[in-house]
Amino acid sequence: MSDSSYTDGTAAVSAISAADPIRERIAQAVSDVRSTTPLAQSFTNFVTINLVANAQLAAGGTAAMSFLPDDIVDTAKIAGSTYINVGTLLPFYKDALADIAPKLQYLGKPWVLDPVAAGIGKTRTAILQSFKTAPPTVIRGNASEIIALDAMWELGANDGAEGETTRPAGVEAVDEVEAAVDAAKRLARYLAQHAAGGKGAVAVSGASDLVTDGETVYRLPGGSAMMTKITGAGCSLGGVTATYLAVAEPLTASIAASLLYNRASEIAERESNGPGSFQVAFLDALWNVTAEQVAQSEILIG
Amino acid sequence: MSDSSYTDGTAAVSAISAADPIRERIAQAVSDVRSTTPLAQSFTNFVTINLVANAQLAAGGTAAMSFLPDDIVDTAKIAGSTYINVGTLLPFYKDALADIAPKLQYLGKPWVLDPVAAGIGKTRTAILQSFKTAPPTVIRGNASEIIALDAMWELGANDGAEGETTRPAGVEAVDEVEAAVDAAKRLARYLAQHAAGGKGAVAVSGASDLVTDGETVYRLPGGSAMMTKITGAGCSLGGVTATYLAVAEPLTASIAASLLYNRASEIAERESNGPGSFQVAFLDALWNVTAEQVAQSEILIG
Amino acid sequence: MSDSSYTDGTAAVSAISAADPIRERIAQAVSDVRSTTPLAQSFTNFVTINLVANAQLAAGGTAAMSFLPDDIVDTAKIAGSTYINVGTLLPFYKDALADIAPKLQYLGKPWVLDPVAAGIGKTRTAILQSFKTAPPTVIRGNASEIIALDAMWELGANDGAEGETTRPAGVEAVDEVEAAVDAAKRLARYLAQHAAGGKGAVAVSGASDLVTDGETVYRLPGGSAMMTKITGAGCSLGGVTATYLAVAEPLTASIAASLLYNRASEIAERESNGPGSFQVAFLDALWNVTAEQVAQSEILIG
Repeated sequence: MSDSSYTDGTAAVSAISAADPIRERIAQAVSDVRSTTPLAQSFTNFVTINLVANAQLAAGGTAAMSFLPDDIVDTAKIAGSTYINVGTLLPFYKDALADIAPKLQYLGKPWVLDPVAAGIGKTRTAILQSFKTAPPTVIRGNASEIIALDAMWELGANDGAEGETTRPAGVEAVDEVEAAVDAAKRLARYLAQHAAGGKGAVAVSGASDLVTDGETVYRLPGGSAMMTKITGAGCSLGGVTATYLAVAEPLTASIAASLLYNRASEIAERESNGPGSFQVAFLDALWNVTAEQVAQSEILIG
Repeated sequence: MSDSSYTDGTAAVSAISAADPIRERIAQAVSDVRSTTPLAQSFTNFVTINLVANAQLAAGGTAAMSFLPDDIVDTAKIAGSTYINVGTLLPFYKDALADIAPKLQYLGKPWVLDPVAAGIGKTRTAILQSFKTAPPTVIRGNASEIIALDAMWELGANDGAEGETTRPAGVEAVDEVEAAVDAAKRLARYLAQHAAGGKGAVAVSGASDLVTDGETVYRLPGGSAMMTKITGAGCSLGGVTATYLAVAEPLTASIAASLLYNRASEIAERESNGPGSFQVAFLDALWNVTAEQVAQSEILIG
Repeated sequence: MSDSSYTDGTAAVSAISAADPIRERIAQAVSDVRSTTPLAQSFTNFVTINLVANAQLAAGGTAAMSFLPDDIVDTAKIAGSTYINVGTLLPFYKDALADIAPKLQYLGKPWVLDPVAAGIGKTRTAILQSFKTAPPTVIRGNASEIIALDAMWELGANDGAEGETTRPAGVEAVDEVEAAVDAAKRLARYLAQHAAGGKGAVAVSGASDLVTDGETVYRLPGGSAMMTKITGAGCSLGGVTATYLAVAEPLTASIAASLLYNRASEIAERESNGPGSFQVAFLDALWNVTAEQVAQSEILIG
């Protein structure tokens, strides 16, 4: 892959070189997970909890799922990272999550938030708003969720240079992921400012995934449209991001997880005949893709 | 397939013709789901929630799972239909479901009920009884569940022409599905009387599925006995019925879903070597079966 | 397989003969499940609840999952056995499980406990401690869980002949399963003393599974390391043990389930290409392995 640059209508974009140092960090993260089998714990929804755990295992990590504050805190102490996904809410989550997030912050443990369905339901909104004071290290969502969370946290209003409304008019007419660029950058800067390690990242999933640390925006082309035909592709990507976050800093962890997913889903699409065999082949590919294949993926910047 | 008629011991039954207008409506429902990817939301049990979502996606729809009234109502407004399955109860469900059903009724949104394990547990009985005043549009269950729900709602007593006891003596000696015919018809008429659109349907799963709108009884032969060797065949059929209900009226939605399941399970049985590969092949077949294959299935009437 | 004996560093071990009467009991249990499809009900975690049910079905049984005391008790009356797994706790479980265990005891129904993550979280500890007064018939866990439960129940202190500390110094340096032998024996004796039928068993999962009735220790070599790369291998083994417990006494049920898992996982490893296809092949193999293959497995004693 050679350096190149072009304009995609919203920004000048160039491909990073095969020798870019970030590739070494990505390869290291993929390898480190496989050699050290780090524990990432999850508080996640009931629909896809099984796939989250199996994807973490297939990527090389280990998994533990918990819902009670005393379980989460005990496990957080021995885990490298935690993943919180607000997909299927139960009544006690509101108090439990308001208790858990500050404890993770106090422990200085990195965690990934998946703000599933942000904007739907007043309980979910209350939970997501509460995270502003004890924020995660990484956020992964689709464009609408990232835009909604940025609006809930009112980050746009305090961000002079990019003080536009959080959701541009006519969003449906443009690429969904591109519509979330500014929200993603604002959120990532906010996470970095509040992180124990001073670093944060936001990943936006879509036809072409986007990851940012608040300064640089990385676009990760490829993947398979079949990922939208199985439930939990996004949730389990959040979980695997937590697995990588147990061994790498937020930006590297987020890019590595998205690239692993893109390469594995491409392989699975070729080897399957529908969504049933696709999911099976996808888990196999998470296990079999090499660190080299992941790290030498096409990565656009700008 | 030509018209034919025979007696199966309980009723005169005849096959509908290849040109019967219902086939066009069935084919349309299957195609419309694939072209419009309608959202059906589910409140369903923890055992099979993943398969429900994956089956809805494989049929061509989209899925959202919720448990809180504020989530359900917010999502119901943007969804075409809702599915409620009372399989694995938690303590808060009793109040939550008593809140949700009237709100779906108020919104005029169609919904499918799966009365899993009707008759087991006083909490479940209380929940199922509460639905009588804000009933679903479609009910799908096995024969015992349909008979139990009909008895709970005391429909037989007020139904002069068919005022027999709800469960005939010696039910074990007859075909289970046939034992539920009268209960299914009474329930379907009750649903139709209370539905915003004036239509309702009841589907009884078994060796040969039965669907009725309260007047005509459709029997849908075929399928695979392997469906009883994976968990969630019935639950996910309820979910896919909700997916079709987002684009079609109750009777068509129920028949289309059952026929899709029968054809897909037959393909899966031929292509698999046990329940693991059967489930994978079944999801692939839901994705690959054509609308024509579904609509030209054998359908018996009478 | 002929009789042989050797020393593995901790105990003299010998292989039981091909004609040992336990083999007939194991074969009978495997066949009886397939011919009588017994119902085993489960109260289990959300991560692997689907695999537990599917494994029970693939082994030949039937499954029902419940969380409320009224559901559990109603279902226990018609089920052959119950399985309780404390993996993912919710707030109401503490009271619910304190209510359920004595009711199972009162009904005289056998049940299997999987003390997942014993030692993590004060809610889990309270629940597991409460089971001492209404204990299960079988316990299945990994070595750490068995050691932790034995310590919680303070069985070592009252057991003169083996009154050593429950966890030997340097446990990491020895085989994990071997470290749990004494705890497993103490627990099994305790279960037998409190069981309606006077019999109990403890199974310790690991590289080589161990099962004991409190007197004899059976070691079951083989299986596949891929079982640690899918979530729910242990949970579903607990569920299948409950399925066998519906037709056999505790020791036979525990050995039969472990042997079925070892043979099925070996087949699945040969036929798969990663954790996705491994799980599919494993469920198929649970369905296809013969009672003869299971019963003629290598079994070490001593």
